[in-house]
Amino acid sequence: PPAEPRGSGAGAARGSPPAAAFCRPAFLQLTPEELRRADDHTGRAVQSPRDGRRRLPWSTGYAEVINAGKSQHNEDQACCEVVFVEQRPSPRGWLSSREGGGELDGGRKGFYFHYWALFDGHAGSGAAVMASERLHLHICEQLRDLVEILQDPSPPPICLPHDARSGSADPNHTSYTEDHGEVPNDAVPRFHLEKAVSHESLVIGAIENAFKHMDEQIERERASQHLAGGCCALAAIYLMGKFYVANAGDSRAIIIRNGEIIPMSREFTPETERQRLQFLALLRPELLGKEFTHLEFPRRIQPKELGKKMLYRDQNMNGW
Amino acid sequence: PPAEPRGSGAGAARGSPPAAAFCRPAFLQLTPEELRRADDHTGRAVQSPRDGRRRLPWSTGYAEVINAGKSQHNEDQACCEVVFVEQRPSPRGWLSSREGGGELDGGRKGFYFHYWALFDGHAGSGAAVMASERLHLHICEQLRDLVEILQDPSPPPICLPHDARSGSADPNHTSYTEDHGEVPNDAVPRFHLEKAVSHESLVIGAIENAFKHMDEQIERERASQHLAGGCCALAAIYLMGKFYVANAGDSRAIIIRNGEIIPMSREFTPETERQRLQFLALLRPELLGKEFTHLEFPRRIQPKELGKKMLYRDQNMNGW
Repeated sequence: PPAEPRGSGAGAARGSPPAAAFCRPAFLQLTPEELRRADDHTGRAVQSPRDGRRRLPWSTGYAEVINAGKSQHNEDQACCEVVFVEQRPSPRGWLSSREGGGELDGGRKGFYFHYWALFDGHAGSGAAVMASERLHLHICEQLRDLVEILQDPSPPPICLPHDARSGSADPNHTSYTEDHGEVPNDAVPRFHLEKAVSHESLVIGAIENAFKHMDEQIERERASQHLAGGCCALAAIYLMGKFYVANAGDSRAIIIRNGEIIPMSREFTPETERQRLQFLALLRPELLGKEFTHLEFPRRIQPKELGKKMLYRDQNMNGW
Repeated sequence: PPAEPRGSGAGAARGSPPAAAFCRPAFLQLTPEELRRADDHTGRAVQSPRDGRRRLPWSTGYAEVINAGKSQHNEDQACCEVVFVEQRPSPRGWLSSREGGGELDGGRKGFYFHYWALFDGHAGSGAAVMASERLHLHICEQLRDLVEILQDPSPPPICLPHDARSGSADPNHTSYTEDHGEVPNDAVPRFHLEKAVSHESLVIGAIENAFKHMDEQIERERASQHLAGGCCALAAIYLMGKFYVANAGDSRAIIIRNGEIIPMSREFTPETERQRLQFLALLRPELLGKEFTHLEFPRRIQPKELGKKMLYRDQNMNGW
């Protein structure tokens, strides 16, 4: 994403109503009676989008059942939406639009994306409910700066003027690839290595930042909204002919084709993140609360083992 | 490896002669005249083990030629050895052996490993020469504690008594897997999750620690021995029927079989290590010398771009 010197906050969050209480995914359109049955740990009714009600895009299938005995409510959530990303008005256009009180020239400019997401809730449904209601809005917010850039086949600009959003950016003046023929007009020698930035990598960056903003919003509103628990977030986004899969947590997206299972994302678990977490613990020992070291041991150490030599694994090791 | 509360130092380093000056791999057995020709940037003679001289184990092939114009000497090195790992004497056995002045009971106990290594030197040959002369000795030193354990098919002990090396360790008393039927004799509830530790993971840990000790030795002796440069280290070790490949740096081991290329190691480059390095920079900004931030930009920023918005990539991002 473009670096934002001052905190931009999470635009999608401002003015939103408080997070709803427990619910099931909106697209299930459950009646109050069906909602009660969804919580029945004995009957364990399978919930699916009903024939005759709204169909999900792409004939998406969905089925859920409560994980009997683990928690009173089903703590997992899901979301399926088609979202319109409206180009953010340029400062000039925004001003004239507000002054005139009318529509932008040419009406709403933007594109749609398809969105499917699953949220595996733990220790309460609050985080999963909020994420299922807001994550796609954060993604939309992040993509708004990219509407014009993604529709322009030329290489994306790397640098934008300070006082403009992308709407008024002129690639001819901001993209290095356009002007590397000119003589540098400052004394510092120009560094001629530049990384290629694809349109897709901007979408990936936007989704990554949306996850970060979503996480920050949950942290911010956790206390005031009495949000319980945490959740894994797995989202699939179809945008301008490409499919993006984003994941935080221990879920996994797969494609099954001709009996072959193709993983589309990888899980984050204590095992997959071990070395990163040990590295963090090495550099920030204060996070360990004097209860652990950054070393991993094959098992919890017993008091009677103190003073003995024990196998360990450091942050840069795979063996013991 | 077993955790060593006090620094054990690098045993292989003690009493070693100073690192040799520039040379070519010992197994080439070059005459002074051949050594001169190896440095000839015009003739660029290919150096290989000669027929009629010592053959390398497993009929290993080797060929080198100077990278003309880059440095006066060839900064790369290689090593090929068969190394005997002698079991470290137990404190008791070591004492009686010293008192009697004779051989250990049953003669030398241990095993052999085959060792092939390449060292891609940069900015001087000092580090590559030292690593080619010492890395296998560090590996040998690390493996000495494992002689008995690797030859015992039962699961390796996780904990060793404080005052004993592995030679006197009794798995029946030190291995948790042997005694989980007993009633815990302390008040703290026993934690019944234990990671499986394979024999191979102990060898991997020994090799990883040997690399670390080698690195520390180079750092320690760099000044006193006027060692120039650094090097990549790529080592293949054949031990008790298994093949281990270890790498630090941007070389890669491959197997070519039936025309198929099978990578046996992966490179470490600024690109493969980007996120780890950015994570380190985020947690330890003082390492950046006030010249960089932990963010990556697609190119070096120009003074005239200050104050503008620029694409960046954070430590937890793949997109921009």
